[in-house]
This record gives sequence, structure tokens and C-alpha cells, in this order.
Amino acid sequence: MNVYDVMIIGAGPAGLAAALYAGRKKLKTAVVSIDIGGQGNLTSHIENYPGVFPQPGMELMEKFHSQALRFGAELILGKASEIHQKQDLFEVSLASGETYVARALILTFGKVPRQLGIPGEDKFMGRGVSTCATCDAPLYKNKSVAVVGGGNSAVEAALELANHAKKVYLIHRRTEFRADGVTVDKVKASPRVELVLESIPLEIKGEKFVTGILVENLVTNKKKVLAVDGLFLEIGYVVDTSIAKDLVEVNENKELVVDSLGRTTCAGIFAAGDVTNTPFKQTIIAAGDGARAALQAYAYLTGKRVGPDWAH
Amino acid sequence: MNVYDVMIIGAGPAGLAAALYAGRKKLKTAVVSIDIGGQGNLTSHIENYPGVFPQPGMELMEKFHSQALRFGAELILGKASEIHQKQDLFEVSLASGETYVARALILTFGKVPRQLGIPGEDKFMGRGVSTCATCDAPLYKNKSVAVVGGGNSAVEAALELANHAKKVYLIHRRTEFRADGVTVDKVKASPRVELVLESIPLEIKGEKFVTGILVENLVTNKKKVLAVDGLFLEIGYVVDTSIAKDLVEVNENKELVVDSLGRTTCAGIFAAGDVTNTPFKQTIIAAGDGARAALQAYAYLTGKRVGPDWAH
Repeated sequence: MNVYDVMIIGAGPAGLAAALYAGRKKLKTAVVSIDIGGQGNLTSHIENYPGVFPQPGMELMEKFHSQALRFGAELILGKASEIHQKQDLFEVSLASGETYVARALILTFGKVPRQLGIPGEDKFMGRGVSTCATCDAPLYKNKSVAVVGGGNSAVEAALELANHAKKVYLIHRRTEFRADGVTVDKVKASPRVELVLESIPLEIKGEKFVTGILVENLVTNKKKVLAVDGLFLEIGYVVDTSIAKDLVEVNENKELVVDSLGRTTCAGIFAAGDVTNTPFKQTIIAAGDGARAALQAYAYLTGKRVGPDWAH
Repeated sequence: MNVYDVMIIGAGPAGLAAALYAGRKKLKTAVVSIDIGGQGNLTSHIENYPGVFPQPGMELMEKFHSQALRFGAELILGKASEIHQKQDLFEVSLASGETYVARALILTFGKVPRQLGIPGEDKFMGRGVSTCATCDAPLYKNKSVAVVGGGNSAVEAALELANHAKKVYLIHRRTEFRADGVTVDKVKASPRVELVLESIPLEIKGEKFVTGILVENLVTNKKKVLAVDGLFLEIGYVVDTSIAKDLVEVNENKELVVDSLGRTTCAGIFAAGDVTNTPFKQTIIAAGDGARAALQAYAYLTGKRVGPDWAH
């Protein structure tokens, strides 16, 4: 039986950093993922990753990927659908039917975009409704679009879209943004962005294509239609940890509960990145926690004392 | 009175990452440090920092530095010598006599190299005895040197020195190295490196210059002199947290105890990086934890709920 030392599920910043570190420790390492880069791909212009000058998130993730491969990690493209514990081993089944066995797992499969749940959303998803400004902004050259949300993702998406579209509505249900001050300043200074505050979208209008969004002002209760060709959802993410729920503890947000060393409540299962209960979903934090989880998995597998590299 | 929102003490990977994140949150931020880059400067060739292809540690730290400045952090060169709490504020005194006031502190001042405590060490420190292979390796072109230690730092120092010196002894008191397998393989394959295992240095010999090292084999108790021109200490580090010991809890290694969000036991004082009780002293981990401590300090200062950027 082909047994991996470590199987990492998810290939975003946390998973790829874990793969790099596991590989350097010469652990037999596999990464199972539906994509490469995860949420790391979705930033058009990452400027808050220490040590790296501004660049597309996708480029940064391609570097993570090549480093993971360089140190020997194997990449298996596919969706992990089940995890079972068999004595000291973990069996990971893919949706395709393949099954793999590993002595330790590192869960780094992140989160998926949240939807609004309003009429027209499902109908136009992927055809006018998008959850990835980085991916789809160039499609809206000289068109009008709207972004919904109030965090960094929403404000950054509006800025990104303003580079392409002639008009960008930023719809936010409050007056204050949760995004970083510097980013909010930029969006407020952009002549192409119009803030639609204290408002929520009620319906996406259109026959074959999106033609507008019905929004309601929460203070005046007035409704109006914004004429747009597309809508970008930047309202957060949901975490789907059902695959692991019988083995490890999850919190009220369904995030995997980890300790400060990346250990879940099940010995041999570690986790890092956005899928965990760490409150800050940042590339640099996911990468650091991924590295730490891999070193902790190495300590678990080898029975070596956990301590600083240089300790006596 | 000129009050900073956040004063960061130390400018290694953790401190500079914290400065970048604090600056992006538009906090009035200062970094006090005796140097820029800290331990991050000491790796000649960092290849395990995700997203960055192999480069000198000093170059990577220069990027961290420029990002911190770009987002508005102020750099104050000097040694912090005292910290006092005055109601809700912290007063930081420098060895030079200057005093600064901040609403929150992030302690990221790392650790300093450990010494052997053997005859000749103090006499030759900086003149044949070094704690920085990256800095001093080029001085030993075609000479003979020894490295003491068994972790990644020691093995990497031996490899770095083998690029310059004609002969490198790697003295380690055990037979197994704690360093990463890939790095150990490289040093074993190097024709210029000779392993001196199960041995410890007893004395550094020489009149005006280092001429040799007396080593003892711990198994046979035989002693011999290795003829070398220099000795590199890679035996670990000591943490000096005396500046904060009256305010925050430290562990048995004198490291600052932090929770998984970078909080010390004193409200308003945060910490990250090698100065904390995190067991893995790695650049990527320090950077991630520095970013997290800054976001947590921001939450403390603004009273904002701590949660993912995109949460409802």
C-alpha cells in the first residue's frame, strides 16, 4: 500500500506553504486540491504580502506552487469527498473514486464565496454575476458594474473594476467600510466609483443578460434600479468542513478549531488557513500557519521533540 | 505629547510585517530597533520563504523594510531599554535617553546568538570567532574554518562557508542533525566539509589570530586540535526579555508567552516572532504572526470586533 506521510487537502497559500515545509523535511507529501492557488488567486494586486512587491495574486501563488513541487510534494487534482480514520492511518477518498492513505493530514481547503440568495442570482451566476473580480473585471471594459460588500475584498474589487468599467457602483449596507483605511481612501477618490451606502440588492434584473440591480435604501426604504451589466459578490465566504466534522471539532462558524500549533482535536490531523478559526484571513498569515502545521505534523510523525531548530 | 498608536520594538521579519499591517490600517506606527532585518539578514540564501525564489536574507528583509515605510511606519534606530505602563499608555525609553509614548506595543525584538563559554571565545569574538556566516564567510577564502552546531543554521553555515573556504569542519555533539534532510544531504555531499561528530569544542587556540580549536570526542574522550583560521558559532540563541518581565509573563526559556492571536498577558502589549514561545523560529512564521499581532493590536485600539474581513 502506497502510504503518504502527509496528505494536504487544499492548495491555497496555507496548503502550498505546508507542502513546501513538509517536502523540505523529506516527508512523502501529497497535495489534493480542486485548483492551485485557492483564494490566493483572487487578488488582482497583492501589496500586503511581506517581502514581495505588488503583483497579481495568481503570480504569487504560481511561485508557492513551484516551490512546493521543487521540494518533492506531489499534486493530485481532485475533490476530496471523504476522510476516514483506520487505526493510525487516514483514508482520503476523492469524488472520482480514488482513495489515498496517509499517516497525517493537513486540512487547508479554505472557504467558498457566499451568495446573496436573491432572485436572478442563480440564473446569472457566471454569466453576469461573478465572485472573482480578478478573473472577470476585464470582461467589463467600458461597461457598468456593481460590487456588493464592505470589506477589503469588496473595496479592492471596486478599484480593480474601475480600471476597466466606465462606472462602478459599490453597494454596502452600512456607511463605514471594514476595509483598510488606505484602500477606502483610494476608492473614495476614484471618479468612476459611486458609493451606494446603507443599501442592499433585492433582485438582479435581465432577460438574457444582466441589465440592472434593484436596490433598497435601508434608511429611506426607497428602491431604485441601477443599470449595470454585471454584479460582483464580495460579501464573504462560507466554510464547508463537513468532510471532517466526525473527526475534529468545529466552531459555530463551522471553522476547524486549531490550537496555536495548528493541531485539531484529532491527533494526526492538522489545519491552517481560512478553514480554521483564526480570525484574520490573510495570505501571509495562512502561509505562516501552513508552515507551522507542517512542522508540527513532522514532529508528530517522527516523535521528535518540538522546539526551536537551534535549541539544545 | 506625541503619542503613537503602535510602537513596535524590533525590526526583523515579525516587526516589519507588523509595521506593514499597522501602517495599512492607518495606525500611527513607529518601529524602534538597533538594526533592520534582524535574524532575517543572517541567511545567505533563503529558499523556504513561500512566494519568494531563493535570495539573500538581507535582500528579502530590505523588501520588508521598504513595504513598512511605504505604508507610513516611522523607523527609530536605537535600543529600547525600558518599558513602563502609565494608565492606558506605554512609555518606551531608549538607551540614548529619548522617550516615546504609545497606546499599544508589539514586541518583536527576537533573540541573540548563544556563546560556548570556552577559553579564547571572548578574546577572539569578532576577530576569528563569528556568529554570522552570511556576514563573514567571504573573509575565509581558501582558509580553514569550523562550524559548531547541528540545526539548520549550522548546516547552512557550513554549506555557505564551503563556497569560500578550502576546508570546513562541522562540529556537532550528536550523530544526527536536527536540520532539514535536504540540507543535511547537501552538506554530506560537499567534498570540502568534514563532519566532526559526537564532539565538542573545549578551547580556541591562538596568539594574535585563531590558529586552531581543541575538540573532544564525547565517546572516546580523545582530544585533538583542528587547525583552523576561524570558528562560527551556530549553537542557538538566547532570548533577553528583561525589558518586559515586570509587565508580561515569560516561560522557562524567558520567551514571551502569547496566545494564538499574539496577545501577551498584559492588555495592549502584543508579541510575535522569535521572542515568543512559538516553537518554530522561521521567517514565514514570524511574518505571519507579526501581521496577526498588528491586526489584533488594531482591534484592541479601535474596539472593533475581531473577525474575518468579510464577516457579516
